[in-house]
Amino acid sequence: MLIPPYGGVLINRIVPDEQWREPIAGAGGKAMVLSHDDLIHLFNIAGGCYSPLTGFMTEQEYQQVIHQNKLPLGLDWTIPILLHVETLRADELSPGTTLVLLAADLKAIGTITIESVFSVDKEAYCTRVFGTTSSEHPGVQDVSRKSGLCVGGPVSVAASGLPDLRYYRRPVENRAWLESTRGKSFTAFSTRNVCHLGHEYLHTLALEVTDVLGINVITGAQVKGSFLPDVIFDTYEHLINHYYPAGRVFLNNLRIPPIYGGPKEAFLQATILQNLGFTHFIVGRDHAGIGSFYARYASQQIFEQLTALAIQIMPISEPRFCSVCQRISTERSCRHRDQEIRELNGKDVRRFLLEKRYNELEKLLPAGLRSFLIEMFEERVDIKESTLQLKGARPILYE
Amino acid sequence: MLIPPYGGVLINRIVPDEQWREPIAGAGGKAMVLSHDDLIHLFNIAGGCYSPLTGFMTEQEYQQVIHQNKLPLGLDWTIPILLHVETLRADELSPGTTLVLLAADLKAIGTITIESVFSVDKEAYCTRVFGTTSSEHPGVQDVSRKSGLCVGGPVSVAASGLPDLRYYRRPVENRAWLESTRGKSFTAFSTRNVCHLGHEYLHTLALEVTDVLGINVITGAQVKGSFLPDVIFDTYEHLINHYYPAGRVFLNNLRIPPIYGGPKEAFLQATILQNLGFTHFIVGRDHAGIGSFYARYASQQIFEQLTALAIQIMPISEPRFCSVCQRISTERSCRHRDQEIRELNGKDVRRFLLEKRYNELEKLLPAGLRSFLIEMFEERVDIKESTLQLKGARPILYE
Repeated sequence: MLIPPYGGVLINRIVPDEQWREPIAGAGGKAMVLSHDDLIHLFNIAGGCYSPLTGFMTEQEYQQVIHQNKLPLGLDWTIPILLHVETLRADELSPGTTLVLLAADLKAIGTITIESVFSVDKEAYCTRVFGTTSSEHPGVQDVSRKSGLCVGGPVSVAASGLPDLRYYRRPVENRAWLESTRGKSFTAFSTRNVCHLGHEYLHTLALEVTDVLGINVITGAQVKGSFLPDVIFDTYEHLINHYYPAGRVFLNNLRIPPIYGGPKEAFLQATILQNLGFTHFIVGRDHAGIGSFYARYASQQIFEQLTALAIQIMPISEPRFCSVCQRISTERSCRHRDQEIRELNGKDVRRFLLEKRYNELEKLLPAGLRSFLIEMFEERVDIKESTLQLKGARPILYE
Repeated sequence: MLIPPYGGVLINRIVPDEQWREPIAGAGGKAMVLSHDDLIHLFNIAGGCYSPLTGFMTEQEYQQVIHQNKLPLGLDWTIPILLHVETLRADELSPGTTLVLLAADLKAIGTITIESVFSVDKEAYCTRVFGTTSSEHPGVQDVSRKSGLCVGGPVSVAASGLPDLRYYRRPVENRAWLESTRGKSFTAFSTRNVCHLGHEYLHTLALEVTDVLGINVITGAQVKGSFLPDVIFDTYEHLINHYYPAGRVFLNNLRIPPIYGGPKEAFLQATILQNLGFTHFIVGRDHAGIGSFYARYASQQIFEQLTALAIQIMPISEPRFCSVCQRISTERSCRHRDQEIRELNGKDVRRFLLEKRYNELEKLLPAGLRSFLIEMFEERVDIKESTLQLKGARPILYE
């Protein structure tokens, strides 16, 4: 038996294509184009990742979430899921009407039935969600760029409008897959990077104590210089097909826009992962954090205060290489500190690859990935130097 | 709050010294000398390790345990705890009388109030407990050497008779210690050997997912060529004081006679460890097994059939070095097999030390133990070669 969805019922606001024509007709012509991030939220609502939400938040929901970390029915919730309106005025939006939601190519993707039109106090939002109004915080920057006008209400999405992305699974699909493994415990690991030795350490841990490991690659944000999703998927496919135990590790494309919400975003991730069917979730020290805006263990401690989720949190410290113990460890598993340890991070992986310092990758990458990634970079570097289009040449990083 | 003792009440059959004189007087002079193994059982009963047992088993208890894996009150129990009588005849033993129990030096250690005098069918015993009557099985050999006459009934032990052994803790002491750590989850690891990289892997696992790790060194058996308890304790002290996280790893001297009972002995160990206050117990693939007498996973599977213990079993596969992944793994955490993996075992540690093949220890011993153990062996070898008594020279292995 799988873990229940958050709130008990898996929300499905996806309309089969044959029933799709009518809501457009009923919308009375009013429409708005959604941003990249809005679309991710829309699909997460409609597919059930945000169960029990059935739409973008109304003013009442929004206020309760930012002030009490609760939905009106009492369930814990931390991050407002808002639809900011950029191209329409408040007097063009009235409760009860339906707005057609368009993709950037103006294709109709879904609808929202407006229940609430309200404006957001950006300072209150940032203080409550990020704990800061500092313009250095990328989440604050993002909010300041957006309109303060929001509409809330239930949404629907046309089945044909769903994204066709590699490893993208809705909760109902992911749950069916988990069930097919015949496992009982399913650990979710979330990442935005290629696997380094620290990640391998956490995967090993999950595989020892639970049945199945889902590697959830977060692909909603596109940060310059970071690995492209396809590269991350390819490297993990290589590990899964040749190194990790057969049939017990799988990939999932986890769509979350860049929020930088630290503990509150960690809670949102946990919500999505429970809805996807996972029973355990590895939460790192500064999970979903940015810079030094959040307290060291805030992303783990939030789960001691907000306890409504059934998914079990595995709070983990940052794995690092300990030069005294001569192995990967965390501050939970060895006592060494400061000069005795060497951090493991994705930036170094990219730097050493770009600078061809391949020897240094030995202490950073799993044995199974070193030559695989080096070959990928060598091919790309060849293109740059010769402008010759080699077979198999491909972009690797966001540029 | 600590885990409850098995059966709900921690048994204490230890008599303070000031109350001790009387039971001897009441014994009417009859006495028997206990073997090394009998003494271990006696102290385990009296101190509460075998709670809810209050004495050696009566015939009724014995029959229910070997035929139904149950104590008369219905609790799961697997290994008979018997007092074999070697020096008295059945007609010298009658229910209701008290027998004084003596150590090898004839010091009175405790008493048993006889409730039951019975003879044991050795074939039934071996078939039920070991699943074999093969004379190759060391447990069968042990039973065949013993008298078939047993007495059962409640025991008491003089406080002054308790063993004074390094790291020896009764459940009440171990529980007080666990409570003082302020942890909530306490993993027990049991071992008869110095720590190799496979053990370090399991310790790391326990430290990542629980608060405290108790390394329970089993010292009841004395197998030729194996490390002396003091050496095992010293090596672990070194790791605990200089490598493992401060305040979260501790040693315990776990007294169990050599049983070779495989799954049933694993269950007995789990019982003792729950009574000691542990919440988790790492059970290996062929835990407490010998040769190929038990099925590969029997020692883990028994806990699916017998579920009365509250201690949580962490079933673990054998850690080994994987030459493809270039790291320690188990069959749960990497897919490689056969020629691709290299087993890790204590025999190799001793062999490489004795043969001075110190380079090979790098792939076998934790970084913190290599020079420590090599120095210990070098000192010993010096003595042998020169017959000069070096300062710090000491015996290392059972000879």
